[in-house]
Amino acid sequence: MEEGGPGHLLSLRADPAGAGAAAPIAHGGDLDAARRLFPGAPEPWLDLSTGINPVPYPCPPLEASLFRRLPSGADLAALRRAAAAAYGPAPDAVVPAPGTQILIETIPRLMQPSRVAVVGPTYAEHAAAWIRGGHAVATVPDLRQAEDAEVVVVVNPNNPDGIVHSVHDLFRVAERLSARGGLLVVDEAFADLEPIESLGPRLRPGLVVLRSFGKTYGLAGIRLGFALAEPAFAARLTAALGPWAVSGPALAIGRAALSDESWRRAAAAARQADAARLDRMIGRAGGRPVGGTALFRTADFPCGISMFRRLGEAGIYVRRFESAPDRLRFGLPADKAEWCRLSRILR
Amino acid sequence: MEEGGPGHLLSLRADPAGAGAAAPIAHGGDLDAARRLFPGAPEPWLDLSTGINPVPYPCPPLEASLFRRLPSGADLAALRRAAAAAYGPAPDAVVPAPGTQILIETIPRLMQPSRVAVVGPTYAEHAAAWIRGGHAVATVPDLRQAEDAEVVVVVNPNNPDGIVHSVHDLFRVAERLSARGGLLVVDEAFADLEPIESLGPRLRPGLVVLRSFGKTYGLAGIRLGFALAEPAFAARLTAALGPWAVSGPALAIGRAALSDESWRRAAAAARQADAARLDRMIGRAGGRPVGGTALFRTADFPCGISMFRRLGEAGIYVRRFESAPDRLRFGLPADKAEWCRLSRILR
Repeated sequence: MEEGGPGHLLSLRADPAGAGAAAPIAHGGDLDAARRLFPGAPEPWLDLSTGINPVPYPCPPLEASLFRRLPSGADLAALRRAAAAAYGPAPDAVVPAPGTQILIETIPRLMQPSRVAVVGPTYAEHAAAWIRGGHAVATVPDLRQAEDAEVVVVVNPNNPDGIVHSVHDLFRVAERLSARGGLLVVDEAFADLEPIESLGPRLRPGLVVLRSFGKTYGLAGIRLGFALAEPAFAARLTAALGPWAVSGPALAIGRAALSDESWRRAAAAARQADAARLDRMIGRAGGRPVGGTALFRTADFPCGISMFRRLGEAGIYVRRFESAPDRLRFGLPADKAEWCRLSRILR
Repeated sequence: MEEGGPGHLLSLRADPAGAGAAAPIAHGGDLDAARRLFPGAPEPWLDLSTGINPVPYPCPPLEASLFRRLPSGADLAALRRAAAAAYGPAPDAVVPAPGTQILIETIPRLMQPSRVAVVGPTYAEHAAAWIRGGHAVATVPDLRQAEDAEVVVVVNPNNPDGIVHSVHDLFRVAERLSARGGLLVVDEAFADLEPIESLGPRLRPGLVVLRSFGKTYGLAGIRLGFALAEPAFAARLTAALGPWAVSGPALAIGRAALSDESWRRAAAAARQADAARLDRMIGRAGGRPVGGTALFRTADFPCGISMFRRLGEAGIYVRRFESAPDRLRFGLPADKAEWCRLSRILR
């Protein structure tokens, strides 16, 4: 293939700092990376590097037609209604998407170049997507230091430290931003199984709430996530994704799972118990719990690097952080065998 | 929910003509619309309103883990290699997406505001997406009248009339556009089963080729499509979709199907025979074939409205066109019973 000179990029939209071509952000769930780091580790790996529920929602049987035909307007409307009932707003405020990630990428491209504050450290794709969208991005340690921004991004509860912002504080920020044409993005990716209040039932102009499906329901592979926003912004986001953004199987599974409030309640209780057990295990191994959610626990170790290595050599992959080498994040083991395997190292 | 005043839209990117909020474009496959038009029609409907292969690729068995875990880099690389082998370019020129539609929406948002020419009439979402992306869009009847444009969009073969542009002509347009920083988008959605040359193996800067998966393989519900572009542009598109844009099931099914060249060849022969049979049937009913592809046939009738009604009252839904009321587009029946049902009306 011919090499492209710089000329052909002239009419591309700004991509400051070449973020589009930057090295991809490291994520959990990449066992290929784990295998490269620890080639001698026993297989199969125990992957605790993500915050995905290890006990998935039992998928309903999927008709062949869900794979074959284009998802219909009726399919989509049914999913919207189920999501509205689960998350609180009206159905016309619900934007289904093939995973939250694509919403994180799309929202910045709908906004004029802005001063953006991301409250962090947090999930790294937020800042990266706003940079790729041509915005000026700062990471600030708390909401109070986001006063000057036109767009504020908060993950609530935060990943990886589990910090929770009050709905009252967030609502006040949304009011302030919307008065000057700005936007508050609240990523509630890990809110489903937590005893916290959501902004979903309290939407207003200038506020977008993101909800993740795959983490809570242990079905990250089907790609399903939601934005909740007042109807005018929801319509623009929906248009930006185009018709049929969500697959037929995801529409059917999502509708069933989001309508099953008793499953969600039982999952919340079970995963919260798992999380407490994991904290005790981490504590016995010398880790100081930093926080987390029902789907992951984060802790600082006297030497995070050596703990990461001990786990890796035993075929257990956890999440580490470039900026905090003593900090590790643990997802939940799925069953007795996995808990035992982890327990043998964390002692 | 609170009503949004105009203030909160101030910092949104331009959305000329309010296209984001415009009435959605009518598409094939919407049987709810058919039922509203013909409430007395017999169920089940025979849906011939799309160009989706009615004989789908036999899905391989899907492991539960494809639904549960995040799609891995290795899964994605395997799909890229299979698509590269099927479509012609190198794997780093392949951008997998959850359907081609989202690529049609995303590409305009990566380009500076441009003068865009869409060769048409054609698939309506192209012009709509460039308008939503803030560009000035004209529809022109042929390539020669796109000389002044910075971006040219061609569907090849065209939907609904099947017009084919030569690779030589298209390649010259791409050269001219790329010399001035422009872009040629060639949507080869219906190319897989046609005896025509693809631009896939002849990528160059300033050229993007779109390939649809669901139509050829009869699996529109899984949402899978591809952009082919030289690596720098492919990397930007990939970044704009974010990681994990394609679901685990779609990655596995796509990889199997795209590696199965003998299935594709047999499907091309079978559907071309079907298309010829459909043309004869349409001709007997007074239709004048306009063109089409192996997956749909388009014809003008002495009175398209009354033929649409005759079919609709019999529970057969075909595609009509607001701008050409005598023109109808027929997808292919799936089996003997469906062919007989259609034949009873087209006589």
